[in-house]
Amino acid sequence: MSGQDYPKFLQNLIEELSKLPTIGPKSAERMALSLLKAPKHRAQSLAEAILKARDHIRKCSICNYFAEKDVCTICDHKDRRDKVICVVEYPQDVMAIERTGRYKGLYHVLWGKLSPLEGIGPGDLPFKSLFSRIKQDGIKEIIIATSSSREGETTAIYLKQLMSPLGAKITRIARGIPVGSNIGYIDQATISEAITGRQEVIS
Amino acid sequence: MSGQDYPKFLQNLIEELSKLPTIGPKSAERMALSLLKAPKHRAQSLAEAILKARDHIRKCSICNYFAEKDVCTICDHKDRRDKVICVVEYPQDVMAIERTGRYKGLYHVLWGKLSPLEGIGPGDLPFKSLFSRIKQDGIKEIIIATSSSREGETTAIYLKQLMSPLGAKITRIARGIPVGSNIGYIDQATISEAITGRQEVIS
Repeated sequence: MSGQDYPKFLQNLIEELSKLPTIGPKSAERMALSLLKAPKHRAQSLAEAILKARDHIRKCSICNYFAEKDVCTICDHKDRRDKVICVVEYPQDVMAIERTGRYKGLYHVLWGKLSPLEGIGPGDLPFKSLFSRIKQDGIKEIIIATSSSREGETTAIYLKQLMSPLGAKITRIARGIPVGSNIGYIDQATISEAITGRQEVIS
Repeated sequence: MSGQDYPKFLQNLIEELSKLPTIGPKSAERMALSLLKAPKHRAQSLAEAILKARDHIRKCSICNYFAEKDVCTICDHKDRRDKVICVVEYPQDVMAIERTGRYKGLYHVLWGKLSPLEGIGPGDLPFKSLFSRIKQDGIKEIIIATSSSREGETTAIYLKQLMSPLGAKITRIARGIPVGSNIGYIDQATISEAITGRQEVIS
């Protein structure tokens, strides 16, 4: 039924772009065509940016966040030698917390969460290194900021049990109504958590 | 207010990806992170695909469609030396028509449409080369397949006037109800065109 395809090199670019998350064939086509239409240096800087990021970015040897050296800029920062570690699932969670500017402690990135369905058990996540950090660095508080999905909760409970013997304070980030949200549109589980976790109004 | 940014090379990759059409900062972040997580060769093949496409793809010297040589595979195809030219706005329109497998003629890609608002006049589009092709190659029919937007219609009317003296048959692709659509959900302008363009049912 069908006629000509795009030229080979263009077809190949569309296929490579389609492998990116959330990019369907139509978006990939649009992206590829825009790269062909734009000045040549734009395509070159994108290609270079991909290669450079892949070559220079690694995992921090302490907290597993992104680093350009052996240790990331957060672990390396002098003002952040706080005795608090916030445990998150993914590096983008670190960025989300950093953007608030509210937290000045350290992190530990798990790069995942416990998920029996996907075959991810305690041995697959960097719990051992977290355990060592808490012990060796005299950490006073562990904030568990895993997601509020079932797997995130399972991971939080596991962490709580694992870390309890170390004597550090263990907290979980608060769940409740998102700022700016109308209660009428929020799901029951969240409202229920928000009521359970209610706090006294200090005047 | 805000804390740390992503490492420089990652930040740069996110910025480059955000320049692609329909890609917002959140999608760019997700794409960049997936490129860092995937095996190194995946990032490399994407970067290579971008550079190769940019280096090898040019405009066909006859019809302005994508080509890897001086002339595209459609203009170069022996079975397509039909005396029909279909005029489209963009190269992706060629591909959309090719995918149907119904059309075996030639194309002429305008890479745009007349748009006084955007300052695109007749001098900015390859009308001259179209005129020469029709004259020199003894083209018998010109199918105008510009979009059915106001600018597409203006371009179609202009083309009709410009090409009329050449004596070739000039047609416009049909407008009407898309296949599989429910008339109740179609806009009035389309229904109106569909009624005007109605065709006798041949039993």
